[in-house]
Amino acid sequence: MPIDPEAEIEITAYEWVPSFAQGQVRDLRPRWACEEYALPYRVRLVSAVERPAWYYEEQPWGQVPFVRDGDVGVFESGATLIHLAEKGGALPPVGSQERAKVLSWLLAAFNSVEPFVMEFVNCMVFSRKEDWAPLRRPSLATALEGRLKRLETALGDGEWLAGEFSIADIAMVTVLRAIPDPALLTAGLSAYVARGTARPAFQRALEDQIAPFAEHDPRKQKAKAENTAKEGA
Amino acid sequence: MPIDPEAEIEITAYEWVPSFAQGQVRDLRPRWACEEYALPYRVRLVSAVERPAWYYEEQPWGQVPFVRDGDVGVFESGATLIHLAEKGGALPPVGSQERAKVLSWLLAAFNSVEPFVMEFVNCMVFSRKEDWAPLRRPSLATALEGRLKRLETALGDGEWLAGEFSIADIAMVTVLRAIPDPALLTAGLSAYVARGTARPAFQRALEDQIAPFAEHDPRKQKAKAENTAKEGA
Repeated sequence: MPIDPEAEIEITAYEWVPSFAQGQVRDLRPRWACEEYALPYRVRLVSAVERPAWYYEEQPWGQVPFVRDGDVGVFESGATLIHLAEKGGALPPVGSQERAKVLSWLLAAFNSVEPFVMEFVNCMVFSRKEDWAPLRRPSLATALEGRLKRLETALGDGEWLAGEFSIADIAMVTVLRAIPDPALLTAGLSAYVARGTARPAFQRALEDQIAPFAEHDPRKQKAKAENTAKEGA
Repeated sequence: MPIDPEAEIEITAYEWVPSFAQGQVRDLRPRWACEEYALPYRVRLVSAVERPAWYYEEQPWGQVPFVRDGDVGVFESGATLIHLAEKGGALPPVGSQERAKVLSWLLAAFNSVEPFVMEFVNCMVFSRKEDWAPLRRPSLATALEGRLKRLETALGDGEWLAGEFSIADIAMVTVLRAIPDPALLTAGLSAYVARGTARPAFQRALEDQIAPFAEHDPRKQKAKAENTAKEGA
């Protein structure tokens, strides 16, 4: 089990997020990589509700994950994946076609697919009550569907994006499973996501992300504080 | 001069794009990297208007750039930057803080800044006549401004994002100069973009991207075809 309080690698995650975000927060990506490559890691929890000011010095947007590995600090989940794959000996050699494929698909997930997914999630979830959201939805769904169709074609009957399972699949599977309307996924991509999320390493990463949320649920914290006050009275 | 018809590296670019896109097409990024690292490259032009069907097999979205380096094919401009930096010996050693910084900022440009810029450009340029565009613009400008303020803070009084000039700056400078409303850039970021675009390597890359557009301008092509027809009559 990669979670180890003495580990050199430390992943910063949120102590609690609302239910719709549970299992979707991006620290899932480096956790998954650590599980795949048997790299022990410890967890540092920060509040998503009141993000500490000092945290912006480590992670410029105040988001998670931030990965510390000894003296080295890495932010942006894509960069943490590259760092962990290199540490785990899981990136093909410099200059090889295999490496180029992994990095091309990794960047594709972050720059050519996720931006459409993020704006679609924004439209369907965060900003759904804004006046522009229902007007924007159809063209955005069309753009996203176009991308997904091209992705399905590129995947073809391959199991993973770059031959063997790689960090490109950690990136793309986590991007695709964030799409709030599963009907947008083609059959081939649904099967691809199912293949990725069936991996034991993904399952452990998911469980470990979710585990602290119950304890840090603000409603539970409030009840606890009230009980303590009552007991003290 | 890195452009060399015999070079091993081949960058695919568009033969012509409309004036608002000239100087902004993403093959600028690997061109700039080749100029910085003195890597000779040749150019293959494809039509942006009628993208050849076979091209999607190399570049899943039919976009540019696609970089071929001997037997190795790379797509996504971020992946081409990593490939070229590794080839040019311009990435710090594996496991170092310097490498982590370059890769973190590279991914930040592609995943945490460019998505806001792309949607803003969409809103202000491509989709400006859509009913949702004027409604979406204010919240999008606010989100983008928030990101830029954080970026300015992170840059501080540093010259470049990761110590020495790196591919992270090639990425971030090209992202920031695509913002169609220069008033959104803070003074510090404007100075940063000016520093980047003043580099001779950038200037050469820009000139070389623009050079073929005059010859392949559809109006000129049409006039030429008419002249040929006239001469033949």
